Parts: sequence; structure tokens; C-alpha cells
Amino acid sequence: MSVEAFLTAAGPLASADVEPRYLSGARYGAGAATALLKPATVAQAAELLALASSHQVPLVLQGAHTGLVKAATPQGQVLMSTERLREVFELDPLDRTLRVSAGFKLSEVNQRLAEHGLQFPIDLSADPSIGGMLAHNTGGTRMLRYGDVRANTLGLEVALADGQLVRLGHGLAKDNSALALQQLFIGASGGLGLITEATLRLAPIPKQAAVALVAPASLEAVWPLYQRWMAEFGVLVSAFEGLSANALEAAIHVQGGASPFAAELPPYSLLLELSSELPAAQLNLRELLHTALEAAFESGEVVDAALDNDEGLWGLRHAVSEGLREQGAVIGFDISLPRRAVWAFREQATAWLAEHFAPAKVCDFGHLGDGGQHFNLVWPKSAAALSAEEGARLRAGIYALVMAHGGSFSAEHGLGPLLQSTYDAHTAEGVKALSAAVAGLLNPQGLLGQFRFG
Amino acid sequence: MSVEAFLTAAGPLASADVEPRYLSGARYGAGAATALLKPATVAQAAELLALASSHQVPLVLQGAHTGLVKAATPQGQVLMSTERLREVFELDPLDRTLRVSAGFKLSEVNQRLAEHGLQFPIDLSADPSIGGMLAHNTGGTRMLRYGDVRANTLGLEVALADGQLVRLGHGLAKDNSALALQQLFIGASGGLGLITEATLRLAPIPKQAAVALVAPASLEAVWPLYQRWMAEFGVLVSAFEGLSANALEAAIHVQGGASPFAAELPPYSLLLELSSELPAAQLNLRELLHTALEAAFESGEVVDAALDNDEGLWGLRHAVSEGLREQGAVIGFDISLPRRAVWAFREQATAWLAEHFAPAKVCDFGHLGDGGQHFNLVWPKSAAALSAEEGARLRAGIYALVMAHGGSFSAEHGLGPLLQSTYDAHTAEGVKALSAAVAGLLNPQGLLGQFRFG
Repeated sequence: MSVEAFLTAAGPLASADVEPRYLSGARYGAGAATALLKPATVAQAAELLALASSHQVPLVLQGAHTGLVKAATPQGQVLMSTERLREVFELDPLDRTLRVSAGFKLSEVNQRLAEHGLQFPIDLSADPSIGGMLAHNTGGTRMLRYGDVRANTLGLEVALADGQLVRLGHGLAKDNSALALQQLFIGASGGLGLITEATLRLAPIPKQAAVALVAPASLEAVWPLYQRWMAEFGVLVSAFEGLSANALEAAIHVQGGASPFAAELPPYSLLLELSSELPAAQLNLRELLHTALEAAFESGEVVDAALDNDEGLWGLRHAVSEGLREQGAVIGFDISLPRRAVWAFREQATAWLAEHFAPAKVCDFGHLGDGGQHFNLVWPKSAAALSAEEGARLRAGIYALVMAHGGSFSAEHGLGPLLQSTYDAHTAEGVKALSAAVAGLLNPQGLLGQFRFG
Repeated sequence: MSVEAFLTAAGPLASADVEPRYLSGARYGAGAATALLKPATVAQAAELLALASSHQVPLVLQGAHTGLVKAATPQGQVLMSTERLREVFELDPLDRTLRVSAGFKLSEVNQRLAEHGLQFPIDLSADPSIGGMLAHNTGGTRMLRYGDVRANTLGLEVALADGQLVRLGHGLAKDNSALALQQLFIGASGGLGLITEATLRLAPIPKQAAVALVAPASLEAVWPLYQRWMAEFGVLVSAFEGLSANALEAAIHVQGGASPFAAELPPYSLLLELSSELPAAQLNLRELLHTALEAAFESGEVVDAALDNDEGLWGLRHAVSEGLREQGAVIGFDISLPRRAVWAFREQATAWLAEHFAPAKVCDFGHLGDGGQHFNLVWPKSAAALSAEEGARLRAGIYALVMAHGGSFSAEHGLGPLLQSTYDAHTAEGVKALSAAVAGLLNPQGLLGQFRFG
């Protein structure tokens, strides 16, 4: 391994000058990089991979650096940013597909698609790059209706660890003419190869949406309400989010606004969205939602509700992360659980924290309908900072509870150094062995990424 | 390799007496098997795989034997049927998931789920086993709305080639806590391991559906109609099928019924289905469809239509395959194409056939909306039978046209011996090399399946 020889060979594509934004992720502390690579074409990216491979130089791949698991934050390696990979943006409005380079950001993609009435329907609070979304298989708030990134990806171009370019999938909705190798790279967190381009399936932008923030009478009322509304509205339901009072309060505070509820904040609220391609004249979703909420009031399952069809309630929902950061150090858990286990986990985790980490304030929120949860904690500024060892113990305790309830320790942010010990502790030996074999095949020198799959 | 020693070791789990149904698939001629293995438990299946591996005995895996590509028809090997793998049927109505053993048939699964208002929403004319559906990633007529088997699978249990059992995925909707290894086995046509169990995502059974058989004014009118209806109805559209006059005529004939159209059969018809969880009192789909069709009549894009909301039109659609078999030898092509290429391919393929294989009658039909097509031909009983060499030339010619139009030579039936030469000719070298490496890892002795991926 000779980093210097590699950098000399990389020439002007490598730079020793690395701006801070490449080192500090949107969500946590700083890393360090020997050099920054910014290929502007797929050919350059492939060439750099080939060079790194022949010089045995480890690379960390980075999109928009909005991740949660430190997969894209270098710890002294050479960093490759995909942000200049913008060669392809090819819309097929009849097939409703988009061939797009990895460097485009989600917001840009959706801005360009809006005039065609189309969207890439993965709705996130962050603004990642397409390549990053694929590498971590993000889900977001509307997964209940549209599925995750995987479900909306019809093909990839990948640069393998040795720089070889491969097209996987034909960009067709129905295609089983080869092994589904593209699926391996989706969610592999940049550890098996570099995704340079994808063919995405698009969805029409709904013509109307109705949103309500609902205070259920109790946590016990939540799943019966969920089941009823899903049975009643089916594919019209585009979001079913949950918000603890602590999370909602933080969001209200950071927005400087008033509570959407008439009475005091309920212990837990639900954000329900219906949306449709039909215009309101044919199907009035606001009315439908209103009627459903009235029935739930009458049955005593709902005690308060705020109904709107503008951006207000979503603004509140998307302000939670910022609101929590205002209150202290956020300890984020991107987990998912079977629906039946959600409340038991919450109760046990809260009790365990009260016993072992009393200052931690549980501010959970997230994608209740699809099982994804941000079981986020705020460690108040007033409390003594957690040591690294204490932090690790806290995380280990929560993840052990997640797994005991049949959950997942990574719902929609993939794998990175922050989850290595959790992965090692909670992944079956057979899965690790198979994963190590696959990673050994695709990343034989272990130069890509910072995660050990086996 | 010692088949005899293997069979001795397999004891009563192996039988030399192989009933014809294991040898003749639902769609083509007979194969042959040295012996039949019918494990009744996952443990037995794993043991048999381990034995086969240590004795180096090739195995062909078989579900309900309804495939199109001969993947499950043995050519002298030892055959393993999964039909007795029925240990697990575990419904979670709150999560809307089903853990189910590979041996259950689709019809059985949906029968058992009906009382809960749920379904596994892959709608097929055939009745495959769950294991077979996973191995070939079937799509069917309602993929436009629900996605394919892959999109509705949340976890697998797999017996590897050496008999090791591995659980892949936690059965959760949102989960990125490991490499997506389960995706490799979906669509691998039994060539990488034996799928013994799956966790499936279920969908509610719609409360109403409205179906119309529509005669467009011309082929040029089809995609504008498709785009308009998709924009108008969005997720309410659950099927958009196409039927050539030859296919429709065959279906009408085999059903002994009258034409659903008032006038003569149009050259091409569309079957459009809307469905919803809302009751008709809240949203009358039949009325909606009627209004849309009236508008299309007025604009001159539709010249005839039959509207119904019972099973009549679907009965006709599902009778096509049987209708074609009545007329002669069916040469089936399970292809998919970008929407923009559908008519050009059809025209060129029809012209090519007229020139080179004049007796072939084009009777195409299929899943127009998702790009999947059954470009089926009838070789009339009156014509001299095609020789094997001629048949191969015909298939090669059609597949070459499919590929020239950016299509796929296998849409929803996976890979098997019938497609080997097509795969070899039309798969990129990089994809073949990578596939061979993955297959070499999972099926190192090449004992599973009958397909060479590289």
C-alpha cells in the first residue's frame, strides 16, 4: 500500500485540501481524510477505483454526507465524493423511469421532475444524494405507500472494487433475466462497490392530500385505529407517523409556533396522511378524513385532532430533528419493530433508561406505520456529558432490547462504523459467514468502506 | 459422485417411483428423474442437501412444476419436490405478514387469508407453490399496483447447497441491518440454494373493483389512454392488460361464449381494472370508469367497450392460455419491453415471422401496463411440426428483436434450460462473470439447478 504513489497517479483528481463539510457529517462529529477525490465522470471514478485497487489504498465513498452511521465519514482514509457524478439525467415519461447519475441530490431530482407531474417518492427530512440513498436503502415517511429505495430501483451501473463497470438490470419493471446482483449493492453502504448511476421508478405527484395530527385516547388505541384506517383507506394512506410529546414539543418550540392541539399536548400523537391522484371533486379526502376522525371521537379512541391540508403539520413533523438538537446532544436510534412489539419495547426501554441513564429524555418519533422508529434520546446540556464507554453501554442496552423484541438495529440508514459492534453482537453466525464470503468476492482486498460484514 | 450411495443414505426419503406429474411440467414435454426426494420437514430437506453435497449428486428442485423455462423439469437428475414442506403457516394480522413454508400453493395461501380480508397480492393464471414463486420472482396481472414477489417478501429461510440453514432478513418492512443476501435467492430459479420458508407482506382484499374491456381506436391511441388513466386514477389502477384479437378469440372460443363486444373483435383490446378499499358508496369506481370511457369515446380514442364488475372479463383473460393450446402448439415468450418499444417490436416481430415462419400465428397478450408480455405464438396443427433446429432459430430471432428494442428475454418466469442459449448470447460478459462468481460461492460444486449463470 502506497498512498503517495496512488495520489501521484491520481494527479489533479486528488486534492490534499479537504473542506470541512466532507469531514463532518450532518449528524455527528468530525473525521479526517488524507486526500479528497472528486471524479467528474464515471470513467474517472472507475479509473480511480482501479488505481486504488492496484496501490491497495482504502477508500471511503461519500454522497451528500447526511447519513447516521458514519459510513461516509473518513477516519484518515482517502475519501471519494460522488457529488460531481452528474453526467446522466434521462427521463422517460412514458415508462415513468429516470436514469440518473449518483451525484444528484433528491431535492434536485424532484424539482426537475415536478414539471412532469412526477416524483421519486422517497420522502425524507434530509437531502441525500441518489447514490447515498441507494447505498443505504432509505425509506422515509411515505414508505407505507411507495416502498423503499430498493422497491423503486430498476437497474444500476456499478463500478466494482477493481474499477470494472457493470450494468445490472435493464431498467425494466418486470425483468428476471439474470441473478439480481444489483440488489446486493443496494443497502451495502458503499462496502461492495461504487454505485455510479441508477434507473429509478417514478410516481405521479398526488393531486390532493389531507393530513391530520391525532391524539389517541391511549397507546392501546393506536393499533386498532391503524388497522381500521388501513382497512378503510388502503392505498390512499400515504403516511402514518408517530410523535411522542417530547418530540412534538421540541418541534413546536424550534418553530416558535403554537400547539396544533386545542388542549395540552397528548403523550403520543399520530400524523395520518391520505393522498390521491383523484381531484377533490371526485373524492374529497379532507371530508373522508374528517368523517373518520369524528367516528373515532365518538368511539372514544381519539381525544383531539388537528386537520389541515397545507404544509403546517408536515413542517412540524420535519422540525423534530432540529428541535431535539436544540435541547442537547441527540443519541439517535434508527430501529424498526414488529407492530405488536412497539409499545412493550418503548415501555421497557424507557424504564431501563430511567434506571441506568436517568438524564436521558426519550423523544421518540418516526414511521410508526411501517415499523420504522427514531427512538431518539436527548442528553440534556445540563447533565454531565456521557463518556464514550457510557455511550457505548447505553447503545448496547437499547439495541439488546430492540433485538429481544424481534426488531432491527438499522431500519433505513444502513451500516457503518457506528453499528459495527451491534452488528457483530446481534447478527447470526451463518449470515456473517455468508456476508463475509460475498464481501470477499466483491471487495477482495477490503479497500472499500469501513464496515466488516463478517 | 455416487448416486447409489446417496440414495442409500437418503433411505425412505428417496423413492425410485416418480409419478408423471413430477416429470411433465404444466407447459411442456416430459423429463426424467433417477429418483424423487420428498422431504416433509426443513430439517429433512437440509439433510438431503448435505448428503447430496457430500456425495456430489446434482439435484433439481421443484415446487408445483408450473414454470415456463424448464428449471424444475429434471433431465435425468435426482429431483427434490418441496410440496411437503408445510410446517409453518403463521399469520400476523397486525403486521400483515405471513411466515409460510415453501410447499404451500398460492391458491391455498389466499384461501386461508381470505377470512382475514388479506391476500398475497400476486395474481397469476397458474397455481404455483410459494417456493416456486420466490425462485422465479413471479409478477402477474396486478404488479402495476402491488409489485412483484420480491417487493412483497420480507425475509427468507434458505438451505444452502451444503445443507446449512440460514435466516435472511427479520421479516420487517424496514430493515437494512445486513447485506440483502435474501435478494440473491429470489429469482435465482433454484440455482443458488433451496428456499424453505418466506415471510411475505400481505395486502387487504379490495372492497370493490370495476373492470372494462376496451377497444382502442388504434394502437397509437393505447399509450395516451394509459398515461391519462394512470394520471387520473393513479394507485386505483390495479391492472392494465392487453389482448390481441387472436388471443381474445381463442379465449372466447374455449369458453364457448359470445364476444363481450357489440361489434366485431378489435385488433387489440385493453383490460383495465380499478379497485379500492373504499366502498362504492364513498367512491363509485364503476361510475368513474364509465365516465372515463365516455370521454374516450367522445375523443375518438375508444371505439367499443364492455364494462362489468363481476368475474366475466377476468375469466376471459385467464382463459387465453387454454384457448391457445386448443389451437395448436404454443410457443411462449415471456418478455418485457420499455413502453415506447412495444408496438415497434410487435410490428417487426410479426413481419419477421411472416417472412421466416409463415404458419406461426401471433396471439400476444399480457401485462401491458408493467411492460410484461406473453408474445405467444400458435403453431397450427395443420402445419408441419417445427424441428428442434427450426424452433431454436425461431426463438433466437424473436429474442434478438426483444433485445434490440431494449427489452428482457425473461420477465416473470426466471431462468431455466430453455433460456440458456438466449442468456449466453444476450448477457453482458461482466454480468456473466460476476454471476458465475456468486454462483461459484453459493453452489460451489454446481450441483443445484440446471442453469449456468456464467
